[in-house]
Formats: sequence, C-alpha cells, structure tokens
Amino acid sequence: MYRTHTCGELRIEHAGQPVTLTGWVQTVRKFGSITFVDLRDRYGITQLLFNESLNAQLDAQPLGREFVIQVQGNAAERTNKNKNIPTGDIEIIVNNFTILNAAKTPPFTIADDTDGGDELRMKYRYLDLRRNLVKQNLELRYRVNRAARNFLDSRGFMDIETPFLIKSTPEGARDFVVPSRMNANEFYALPQSPQTFKQLLMVSGYDRYYQIVKCFRDEDLRADRQPEFTQIDCEMSFVEQEDILNNFEDMTKYIFKEIKGIEFNEPFPRMTWDDAMEFYGNDKPDIRFEMKLVNLTKTVQGNGFKVFDEAEVVLAINAAGCAEYTRKQLDELTDWVKRPQIGMSGLIYARVGADGSIKSSVDKFFDEPKLKVWAELANARPGDLILVLAGKEEKTRKAASELRLEMGERLGLRDKNVFKPLWVIDFPLLEWAEEDNRWVARHHPFTSPKPEHIALMDDLSRYGEIKANAYDIVLNGTEIGGGSIRIFQRPLQEKMFAALGMSPEEAQHKFGFLLGAFEYGAPPHGGIAFGFDRLCSLLGGSETIRDFIAFPKNNSGRDVMLDAPSAIDDKQLAELRIDLVKEAKA
Amino acid sequence: MYRTHTCGELRIEHAGQPVTLTGWVQTVRKFGSITFVDLRDRYGITQLLFNESLNAQLDAQPLGREFVIQVQGNAAERTNKNKNIPTGDIEIIVNNFTILNAAKTPPFTIADDTDGGDELRMKYRYLDLRRNLVKQNLELRYRVNRAARNFLDSRGFMDIETPFLIKSTPEGARDFVVPSRMNANEFYALPQSPQTFKQLLMVSGYDRYYQIVKCFRDEDLRADRQPEFTQIDCEMSFVEQEDILNNFEDMTKYIFKEIKGIEFNEPFPRMTWDDAMEFYGNDKPDIRFEMKLVNLTKTVQGNGFKVFDEAEVVLAINAAGCAEYTRKQLDELTDWVKRPQIGMSGLIYARVGADGSIKSSVDKFFDEPKLKVWAELANARPGDLILVLAGKEEKTRKAASELRLEMGERLGLRDKNVFKPLWVIDFPLLEWAEEDNRWVARHHPFTSPKPEHIALMDDLSRYGEIKANAYDIVLNGTEIGGGSIRIFQRPLQEKMFAALGMSPEEAQHKFGFLLGAFEYGAPPHGGIAFGFDRLCSLLGGSETIRDFIAFPKNNSGRDVMLDAPSAIDDKQLAELRIDLVKEAKA
Repeated sequence: MYRTHTCGELRIEHAGQPVTLTGWVQTVRKFGSITFVDLRDRYGITQLLFNESLNAQLDAQPLGREFVIQVQGNAAERTNKNKNIPTGDIEIIVNNFTILNAAKTPPFTIADDTDGGDELRMKYRYLDLRRNLVKQNLELRYRVNRAARNFLDSRGFMDIETPFLIKSTPEGARDFVVPSRMNANEFYALPQSPQTFKQLLMVSGYDRYYQIVKCFRDEDLRADRQPEFTQIDCEMSFVEQEDILNNFEDMTKYIFKEIKGIEFNEPFPRMTWDDAMEFYGNDKPDIRFEMKLVNLTKTVQGNGFKVFDEAEVVLAINAAGCAEYTRKQLDELTDWVKRPQIGMSGLIYARVGADGSIKSSVDKFFDEPKLKVWAELANARPGDLILVLAGKEEKTRKAASELRLEMGERLGLRDKNVFKPLWVIDFPLLEWAEEDNRWVARHHPFTSPKPEHIALMDDLSRYGEIKANAYDIVLNGTEIGGGSIRIFQRPLQEKMFAALGMSPEEAQHKFGFLLGAFEYGAPPHGGIAFGFDRLCSLLGGSETIRDFIAFPKNNSGRDVMLDAPSAIDDKQLAELRIDLVKEAKA
Repeated sequence: MYRTHTCGELRIEHAGQPVTLTGWVQTVRKFGSITFVDLRDRYGITQLLFNESLNAQLDAQPLGREFVIQVQGNAAERTNKNKNIPTGDIEIIVNNFTILNAAKTPPFTIADDTDGGDELRMKYRYLDLRRNLVKQNLELRYRVNRAARNFLDSRGFMDIETPFLIKSTPEGARDFVVPSRMNANEFYALPQSPQTFKQLLMVSGYDRYYQIVKCFRDEDLRADRQPEFTQIDCEMSFVEQEDILNNFEDMTKYIFKEIKGIEFNEPFPRMTWDDAMEFYGNDKPDIRFEMKLVNLTKTVQGNGFKVFDEAEVVLAINAAGCAEYTRKQLDELTDWVKRPQIGMSGLIYARVGADGSIKSSVDKFFDEPKLKVWAELANARPGDLILVLAGKEEKTRKAASELRLEMGERLGLRDKNVFKPLWVIDFPLLEWAEEDNRWVARHHPFTSPKPEHIALMDDLSRYGEIKANAYDIVLNGTEIGGGSIRIFQRPLQEKMFAALGMSPEEAQHKFGFLLGAFEYGAPPHGGIAFGFDRLCSLLGGSETIRDFIAFPKNNSGRDVMLDAPSAIDDKQLAELRIDLVKEAKA
C-alpha cells in the first residue's frame, strides 16, 4: 500500500505518529528553507512541512501544482491551526518524499471558482472532475442512488437488468440504432426506457421491479438535455394509482431525509392537470409561491377595449408588493413579454395604491369600480401590482405562466433551498401533434385511459377529453418523475394503438410480443420513472444536469474529451454492410 | 390495493381472517362441488377452496391455467396440510372472485421440468420467466448485486456512471457502433468496458470506483456468450497488486457468505500463470481436484517409440482408481481425444495393478522399471491408471488439460456444490496473434508490465517473456474476474502502444485523452472486473449464463421474443445518412 492514511484522516491524536501519505499537490508556499505543501486526495487536504535546513533533499522546489507525490513523515501539532478543515490541527513533518508522477500546469485553475470556460473544462473533464464542486455533485449522485436502492430494496422491489440491444419501434422520440453485423442490414435500437420490458416482468409475475438505468433518445439537444440519461425505473403489479403515489411519495421523502435532512410531514399536494393548466399555465407548477393565474376574460370583455375583446383569454397575476414598480421597470417587463420566446404584443397593469385606489394602464376603458373587481378576483391588496396578458389561449396561458415564474424569481420566491413537491394527476391520454397531423400519446401508448373515459375512444371528436391514469411528480417547477397505470388487456391496447393511427399489422409488427404477453395472464400494473440526473441536480441546488454527470456530452451530442462520435474504419463499415451517404438525402 | 396479502404470506395464525388475494391460477382440481385452486404469485402459492354448493357463483369452471384472478374469502386451517410449502397449513374459503385477466393455454408447461424447447421458451420468455427455476436465478442475481454493492459501499468505493456512447477504438474485440444523426457520417461505439473512464476517474482523484454495468462486444457468439453482458467493474488508486487481491478476495468471500452461507477461512491459493500452464495446461485451473499434468518428455524420449521421440511434449495424468478401466472404456477414451475438438492422434495408458505391477499399451518400448518411473513421477499408486498424450506443445497441453477435466468429471471430482477459488497471477503482457501477425495485449493495452521486465520491451525477440502485473480470479475452472495494475505514465503507455504496432499518430488519435490525462498528475492505480453473469451462474450451480439473464439473446445475437434486430425505416436511414449494402463487400 502506498499510504498509511488518507489526506482527510489525521487529527490531533495522531500527533507523533509516523505516516505515509499520497496525493496531489494543491499549493506550494515557500518561506526561506521551509516549504508548506497542501496535499489533496478524495478525502481531504493535509498540510506538509518540508524543512530544507534539516536535510538538503527536502527541497520542495521541483513540486508543482497537481504533482502526485508520496511522503513519509511524522504527524505533528500545528502552531498555526486551520479551523476550516478537519485536518487543520496537524501537519506532517516530511522526512522524505517521492514524486510518483509529475504534472504539467493545468489549462485552468482547479478550484470552485475556476477560470476555465465550458468547452475547455469539457475537453479536460478529468481535471474538471477534480474540482471540489464537481466531486460533491458526484458524491451526492452516489448517495441518492444508494438511498433509492435502500428504499426500494426495503419495499421488496427487485433490481432486474433489461437489455440494451432491443428493437426499434419509432413512436415518440427518435431511437439510436445499432447496425447488426451478424444479422446483416438489420438494426438494434438502444432503449428510450425499459418500458415494455418492465411490463413483461409484471406479466411474468415479478410483482415489484426497479432499475437505475441508462436510457437513450436521439433528439435535437435543447439546453441541458443529454442523449443518454439515467432513470430510476419502477413497476408494480396489482396496484391502483393511489398505491403508486403513496409508495413513491414515501421514496421521495426518504431520499430527502437521507440527502438533505429534510422531513416532509404533510402528504404531497395533488393537483389535476386541468387545475395546473388553469392556475399555473403549465403542467409542472412551481408551488413555492402562490401568484395563481386569474382568468379575467368574462369580467373584462365588452368594455370597448379591443385587445381584451378580441382575445381568446385574458389572464392576470398579482405581483404582491410591486405597486411601486417604476415606469422603467414596467417598460422593461413589457419588453420581456414581447420577446420572441414569449411573443405577447403587450402587458397591461393595474397598481393598487397604499390607500386602496387603483390606477391602470387602461384607465380609459376601466374605471375604478371595474378595476376593483380585477383586484378582488386577483386577490390584490394595497401595494400590489396586477399584471394582465391577453391573446390566444395557448400562447397567453404559456406567457402568463412564464411571467409568473419571472415575477417569482424577481421577488425572491424561488429559493433553491426550499423544496415543494406535488403530484399532478389526471393527465390527458392523447394530444394533437400538429406536425404529424395525428393524435399521439401524451405519456406513452401503454398508459391506460380512465375506465370511465374508455368509451370516448370511439369518438374521434372527443379524444381531447380522455383523461388517463397518469401522473407526474413535480418539484419546484420541474418534473422529476412520471408514470401511469398501464393497459394490461389486449383489446384495450389494440384500441389505443388504433387511436394513434397504427394499423393492426403495424401494431403486431412493433409490439406483437407485448400484445401476445397480455393474452397469457397479465396482471393489472403500473409504475413510474424518475429522471435521476434531474433529481440529483435539484437536490444539489443546480440548474444543469451536466454538473451531475461524470462524462457529459455537449449540446451537439459530442464528447469533446474523447472526440466522439468519430469516423470509423472502412473495414468496420464493410463488416456492417453499410455505406455512408455524404450528402443528406432530399 | 388489489390484495391484502401475498400468496406467500398466510400462516395458521391468520385462520379466520378475511383476506383478498391476487395471482395466477397454477392448478385447478375439481371434486364434485368443491374446486381447489392453487394461486401463485412471486411470493408463493396459496390453496383456494371454491364451494359451489354454498353459492352457485363459486363455479370455478371458467378458470384456466395462468388466469389472473382476485379472490375474497377467509383464511382457514386445512385438514389436509401440505408440509412442503410455508402456506401449507391454511387455505382460503372463497366468498367471491373476479377474473382480472383470462389466459390462453401456455405454449409450454410452466414448471421446473418444462416441456418447452429452447427456442420456444426464448420466444415466450415472459412465460419462461414464470418458472420457479428462472425466478430463483434472477433472485439470486439480484442478491449477488446487492451483496457486491454492500461490500463495495462499506469499503468506500463510489458508484459512478460512465457513458455508453463513446469512441470506437478497435483494439481487441469488435465494437458495436451507433451512427450519429447530429454528427453526420460519424459513429459512437458502445463500451466493451468502462476501462479508460475508470482510469480517468483515478486521474481525477476519485480513489475508489465501482459500477455494475453493461458492456458490449460484437463477437461471433460461441455457446454461452452474449453480445451484451454485465461486469462488476472496480478501480483503486495508490495500490499495488497485493492490495487489489486482498480487497477482492474479501469481496468474493463476502458474496459467498451472503449468498451460499459458505465461509472460506483460508486465503485463496495463488498460482503463477507459468505454473497453471505447466500443471493444468490452461490459465484457469479447476483445483477442485489434483490430477496435475506430469511432464514425461525427457523421461520417455530415446526409447525408440516414435510417437514420443517425435513429440514436442509428452504429458501424463494419473486417473486414480481407474486401473480397472475395460478395453472398451479405454477405446472410448481414445476416441474422445481423437475428436476434432481435441485433435490428438492417440492415447497411451499404463495400468498400475493392485500388486503394484504395471502394464502399458507400449510395453514393447517400456519395460516395467521404466514404467515405474512414470508411476513415480505421476504419483500413481496400485489401482491407478496413467494416461499419456504426446505431440506438439500447445495442442498436447490443451488436450491434456481437457482430458484432465473429462476424467475429473467422470470420477465425480467436479461437484458443483464445492467451490475452489484461486488467483492466477503473473500473466504474460503480450501474446502473438497469428491471424494479425503481430503482438497483442494479453489483457488490454493499459496493463503494466512488471517493472523488472520493462527493459525487455526494447527487444522484440523477448516480448513473449514479459510478465504483467495482471491477475485473474478463477472459480472451479472458470475465470470469474480479471484485472491488472495499470500503466500510469505517458512514456510507458506510449511504449506499450508502440509494442502493439500502433504508430504515435494512431495512439494519439485513439487514446490521446488518456495520454493527455497521464500528464496532469496520474496516480498509480489498478483494478479488476468480475463477469457478473458468469459469477451468478456459478453461484447458482448452472452452466449457462443465459439462465441468469432476464432477456437473453440467442446464439445468433437475436432476441427472438422481440424479433430484434430488425429492418428500420428508410426515413431513419436517411436521417442517419447511411445506405445498406445488400451484398457483403469483397
């Protein structure tokens, strides 16, 4: 063994002991014949003292930052103790040392507050991973993994591995595919999730399954999406929605307790999808703050104000305490809603003065009694500011949702150390995909409609009304997991495939194994999958999942450290019987 | 919740309680108005009693094998107890029942002793998974997984996920590749192991890493090889070989204790690769029995027996107690060594009679005093049979190894309930690859030569002599894991790549990231990977890893249940900018 202790281990009680340490040179500080070196490893930092006046060989001159060294010496009490680190009471009086490996000067500073840009740190990811911040993130990820496993193990879930080389069944996101050499001109696909396998395991009677597993989606990468990502994937048999929600609410609580020391004593709130859309304008409400959307449409129309009269919807939020917003601030907010990402044509506001009087930007059309109705509906009090958007239903609702979040941010209502989970339930089964000109599954094609809505599947005009036994768990405005009670009977599954525009032949070709399995005794079942990367990033108080992945890819799906993807040999192509098409096909 | 209890839960103390159970109909036995149904779930089997004379609705007639049902009733003490199952003291007097899902008659019997052939069971894997035998295998796998994790967690190893979409660096086995849509004409590769990533994590200072992770190799599938397989992958920093052997010997012992209740009180034996080849004819000796190979070459040559005189090597084994083998048995054994897989031209034997006299098949050339020397060297005693093979070194050694295993099998010396692990150490660094006409890495290109052998790397003629700090853990004649101390300095790594015939440019192109990493402070490190599938199959007493994989592929790499791989859409091909080559290229 190269060492007797780690760099995080020695305390005052070790003073006088001979020790051997190994690690990386963090800093070198020379004072005459004395040199102090901070030696770092995964476990901590220990101060080394090289005294050249005792022994000329103890010249620490050759040591540079990030050199890997081994030192023999004796632990000794420090005169100048460092209370900020656990090893701060001692230092090592070095007797001799060995350079195990030299190091070039790193291309960026290895510190929390690094001078390295994103691309540079991605290229030298092995150095970026040395930064304490990143190390803490990966440690947190490991702890969350263990906590989830401990919980699921204790509840009788079995970790069962499902295959990575599966069948391509394009439906939803795009598959990554893998050409087969042994089966020429055929391809495997990498799983977008183990969905059908976990359902088959339920059919096989495994009752409770889980896996913390990589999944793959070949989608255009929006910021903070990765082509490979990790799910905590779970499934249970003989359960109803209530059982799943309770079980995974318990898991979430367990993880929070283990990782953050936070206890949730109340059940997580539940909100229907309809309510989420109505009051928050989206299906993953951030409920750390109230500021619900208020529908003023009926109240304000018919007063001669064209913007309102021609709008499909008029929505207000109440920015509490913002009545004092300056003209400049309001102009700036107006510009904010006019940005292309939001796309509104303007912002109307009404200030509730300290005396209860109300002044609006549309006083011409709305007198004070009318504005008082707005204030009442929006629950606005003296000192508050009512912000109003009007326009097409979908766009306006989305804009109001964004404006709400923006105001929440500005008002400091979105503290990343406050955690507010909730369940959103009763999602629509189907949604209209404009680009494909057909109905697609909101969740996935295996999600069961609510039993009382099955009949609606026979009426194309009512597809939008069908609700599913589907649910998401949302934390601070981010979906961290989602699932559903599944279809487990062949006829209903066939009906669902048909609703998605799949012919019986296509359904059989793609999902024949599942339809077949449903004929041999399939139990009622349901499940959930948590986005593990996202969960970790929220627990770690970060916006970006990339910070919680050891070797992430950039926004073009490239690993810039490996320089992957890359060209492959002609020999490999020939063996796989594929040719490259140099220009995109028309 | 669909049930109050599982089918494995009820005991005599539940008698009288109202219960709701769900599960699969295992058997239906009708006696007049009484029908007994065995209801099965993951947890066990419970007997149900349907009494039609009490209630006409309790007609169990519609129930067939594998129907999924829910029953309400009362637990009651059985008059005719079944001592073979934990629930055998009670039965459920059914009050009412619901068919949750009907089932067609399964295509094969769902029982340990099934009538289904391999292909049929692969096609209906979801039914095969219901068999108790398969379920026990997957449960064992899950328990081994947990045991390994518990051990590694307790020793400070961190589970860190490494990427699946990496760079193709053909060297050793063939990569599976994944065409990139976003980076046209470029490909990712699926990892054959996380080797370079775990080494980078050591460079990053993570000190102790593990992962239970899927790996991929696109090789022609010999029996019982899978294109995707699972490793317990581990790496440690600041360690020497001794540290790794001790740590993972402890892990192996821990797993055996947890899974099999077996305690190994002695350290695992260690054997050099040279000795393994010398005494067992292969590098994964089955040491459940002795019967070492004995080299008779020098002893027997020069006696005028051409077969021996012209042989590179003459090897004997002593089949204890087999002197009574009949002529027919010996002829059969001779045929066995002449089979093409073994390829010897004949088998010589010498019987040691009860009185110590020796008779051989080559008495013409060897008189009894000479044969006594054979017996002495082979440690043969009265009643033993000496079997002798002669020929070319490599083939004869392999044949002798196979013959030894065959005789061990015939003599009942290979009890699958006896476990004899050992370490094989000091592997050669390089081996000559006839087909490629070059030296290749015996383990992989990152394995370090023994320091005292580094100088030999400058002398091509002595490449075969270079030994590595590489080791395998072998159990009952099967390699269950292997690893090495790694190269951690750029110059030595470059020397190694050069020894493998890689130009500096090629080395830089393929492994520039690793060479680069070694320049920024890489610690000494080493590791090991266990073949998880194989370890499970040995612990489970089975020959085939397929029995321990939920959804395995067949010998053509096909998942016959999914029918994968399969053709993909022209649209997918166009997006990936690849064309299919219908005929294999010349």
